[in-house]
Amino acid sequence: MNINETLIGIVAGTCTSTAVIPQLVKTIKEKKAEDVSPLMFFILLTGTSIWTYYGFLKDDLPIIVTNIFSSLVTITMLFMKFRFSSK
Amino acid sequence: MNINETLIGIVAGTCTSTAVIPQLVKTIKEKKAEDVSPLMFFILLTGTSIWTYYGFLKDDLPIIVTNIFSSLVTITMLFMKFRFSSK
Repeated sequence: MNINETLIGIVAGTCTSTAVIPQLVKTIKEKKAEDVSPLMFFILLTGTSIWTYYGFLKDDLPIIVTNIFSSLVTITMLFMKFRFSSK
Repeated sequence: MNINETLIGIVAGTCTSTAVIPQLVKTIKEKKAEDVSPLMFFILLTGTSIWTYYGFLKDDLPIIVTNIFSSLVTITMLFMKFRFSSK
């Protein structure tokens, strides 16, 4: 893998793995997540977990790192969804 | 790339690219998306677009196909967000 490809993978992975952060911030700030679909984040978490495994299989560092990060943010978002939806 | 790896990539990509669908269905059904962060979907779209490019660079079909699909669903979700938030 050349450096250019790795860089593009890192930029792409940074976007897809940080995408949930604005939602997380909005939810924590407004303390409501009624309109947010929990199923979205469950499926996303399943996906990012399998992508992490795929990254290990293909020895692809950008895929591994960004998907581990993405899984952690998604788990946090799921907690917030249920915390603020039960009110 | 062996068949097992391709299969795992397809499963992972199917999850991450279909994740936005439950949110899209919920938004269309309830006709409101006030709690949904538009920035999340903008960043996601940027990410899936660059992942598509990365897939072409690495000749990785699961990455290409799933990220093109994901981009289309995310664009649709952005339209719905602004349609139902302006009401």
